[in-house]
Amino acid sequence: MSNPSLLILAGDGIGPEVMAQVRRIIDWYGENRGLNFDVTEDLVGGAAYDAHGVPLTDETMAKAQEVDAVLLGAVGGPAYDDLDFSVKPERGLLRLRKEMDLYANLRPAQCFDALADFSSLKTDIVGGLDIMIVRELTSGVYFGEPRGIFEEGNERVGINTQRYTESEIERGARASFELAMKRNKKLCSMEKANVMESGILWREVVTEVAKDYPEVELSHMYADNGAMQLVRAPKQFDVIYTDNLFGDILSDCAAMLTGSLGMLPSASLGAPMENGRPKAMYEPVHGSAPDIAGQGKANPSACILSLAMALRYSFSVGEEADRLEAAVEKVLADGVRTADLMQADGDAPVSTQEMGDAVLAAL
Amino acid sequence: MSNPSLLILAGDGIGPEVMAQVRRIIDWYGENRGLNFDVTEDLVGGAAYDAHGVPLTDETMAKAQEVDAVLLGAVGGPAYDDLDFSVKPERGLLRLRKEMDLYANLRPAQCFDALADFSSLKTDIVGGLDIMIVRELTSGVYFGEPRGIFEEGNERVGINTQRYTESEIERGARASFELAMKRNKKLCSMEKANVMESGILWREVVTEVAKDYPEVELSHMYADNGAMQLVRAPKQFDVIYTDNLFGDILSDCAAMLTGSLGMLPSASLGAPMENGRPKAMYEPVHGSAPDIAGQGKANPSACILSLAMALRYSFSVGEEADRLEAAVEKVLADGVRTADLMQADGDAPVSTQEMGDAVLAAL
Ligand SMILES: CC(C)[C@H](C(=O)O)[C@@H](O)C(=O)O
Ligand SMILES: CC(C)[C@H](C(=O)O)[C@@H](O)C(=O)O
Repeated sequence: MSNPSLLILAGDGIGPEVMAQVRRIIDWYGENRGLNFDVTEDLVGGAAYDAHGVPLTDETMAKAQEVDAVLLGAVGGPAYDDLDFSVKPERGLLRLRKEMDLYANLRPAQCFDALADFSSLKTDIVGGLDIMIVRELTSGVYFGEPRGIFEEGNERVGINTQRYTESEIERGARASFELAMKRNKKLCSMEKANVMESGILWREVVTEVAKDYPEVELSHMYADNGAMQLVRAPKQFDVIYTDNLFGDILSDCAAMLTGSLGMLPSASLGAPMENGRPKAMYEPVHGSAPDIAGQGKANPSACILSLAMALRYSFSVGEEADRLEAAVEKVLADGVRTADLMQADGDAPVSTQEMGDAVLAAL
Repeated sequence: MSNPSLLILAGDGIGPEVMAQVRRIIDWYGENRGLNFDVTEDLVGGAAYDAHGVPLTDETMAKAQEVDAVLLGAVGGPAYDDLDFSVKPERGLLRLRKEMDLYANLRPAQCFDALADFSSLKTDIVGGLDIMIVRELTSGVYFGEPRGIFEEGNERVGINTQRYTESEIERGARASFELAMKRNKKLCSMEKANVMESGILWREVVTEVAKDYPEVELSHMYADNGAMQLVRAPKQFDVIYTDNLFGDILSDCAAMLTGSLGMLPSASLGAPMENGRPKAMYEPVHGSAPDIAGQGKANPSACILSLAMALRYSFSVGEEADRLEAAVEKVLADGVRTADLMQADGDAPVSTQEMGDAVLAAL
């Protein structure tokens, strides 16, 4: 039997630095736990544009379709700000999501005990927070047609189309209910059904799917109220299911509540492949952080924890995922800190590499 | 010369209760400051639906077009949840915004010193916060066509259209720069230009308008990062300009940061009328709060402060607006508290009426 395969797309900014630590951990699993992966690396985003003039080549896209899981670092940076929309680094990422049909984007927002102090929120409001946002990732206003900038009379008009079919809403809802069943059996669906017909359909479909999950307590919330409630009392939530655009904003808001942006992973899952594994891409929630790129300051934890999600969701070795997560938590509890996790009066921060060392030592 | 005219649309839930206190304050200004208004009252939202089968009658719409300013309470409630989309309470509000062409929605997010403890955020992060979100209110995905739920193959699809012309973006941008000139001369524009062409046009137009305001420091931010930054360090902002949908979510998020939802007013402004005053509607940021409606518990401050905004923006009596705002702040500093502003271990809360009494006494 051949080894499971991983495609690493480190991307731009701090992507390559944090991914280098992930590679060391992948090697550790091969040497110590008999988990051997066939790893290939390739380019995405600005790095691919620099080499090939496009943010993702067809060859890379084809490889991504073949492997068991993709690990992505980050894309984008000021060097690419003036590029044409069609070749912006982000288009590489969006093409991967769309063509791999990764419809369920799982974004945990978890407040690490050792880091609760870094939150803007009071400790009693955010301490122990552990919610999961499921963002629909392949449809909605990110991909709807018509789209573009058009002439109209004597001026231009910018158009994008929010668009959801019943089956698109349904499959993400099922993924969300399944997650809720494994967690605290609460699901809150967020849309703007008071203003948008796409939200009305969303609410209807989610309500219908709920009949297959009688144990899950379903609630609905308008997305603006959702943003309020995330700030007011985030611990009221367990799983949140929402669309591509609301999910973009609400999951970033939720991530920042925890104060641990450098710590948060994500998984983007699609339908099962022939081998039973879901199509899958894993990436940190943080971006390419161009201000600190290349300085060895970045926190590799979010990317390392994305590997943990891969172990859990793609390779069904949950205990190995737990092991890796526990190692990261131990390192935090021991006070090992990259610069993003430092208080102004703290000790000297460790480097990206030293953080990797510490996690390896804790494994 | 005839008196300036006000149309009061108290609406649903706590709307009528809080508006009753505003009426007393309007009377006070007539008796004590020679500011006499011709006030008429009418129905909107569920109240209008109950009486007329529509959330806003053509007659009420016509009145709103004629008066100098509209004061609105709140619309909606669970009794209307199952109504058809076209007659939902919210449609009344949206019709007013659209037909009066109230394109600039001013939403201050201000942390009142006496109330900083109510924020979920740490006091040093939120204390002294005073930002102004300008939300484009008459276009975007709220109003774009095509929209609706359609059959497609053997399933349904929900569609809404995000749509912005250059002139729509421009007029809101001008309103935002004008405000920035009167404040700290910083403007941050938020969109998703990395994903949406409408966002690209938005950024381009705002950048162009900025040339007329060289003193204002302009920055651009993706809306997801905007949500993060609002939580992380809200005091970095002065004026934020964003679209209808992003503005809905981001302004609610910003409002909740302050912990004083019951305190926050808003102004929705359009083009100047013949008398030079802008078309205008003023309303609290909070909703109809059906859970406490009719119990005399609601905080009338947000609605009272909306009247202050009317004094400033419609009637150009800024010193009278200051007077009213100072009265509300004094009442807060004196420890007078409606239930929403109470700590668990606080004294007994005052009623809606008593809060009105206190503001009148402080005037
Ligand atoms: C980089 C960008 C295209 C992307 C998005 O908007 O989806 C990012 O913000 C995210 O949330 O993964
Ligand atoms: C009531 C609703 C239609 C409205 C909106 O979405 O604009 C409200 O949330 C607001 O922000 O004023």
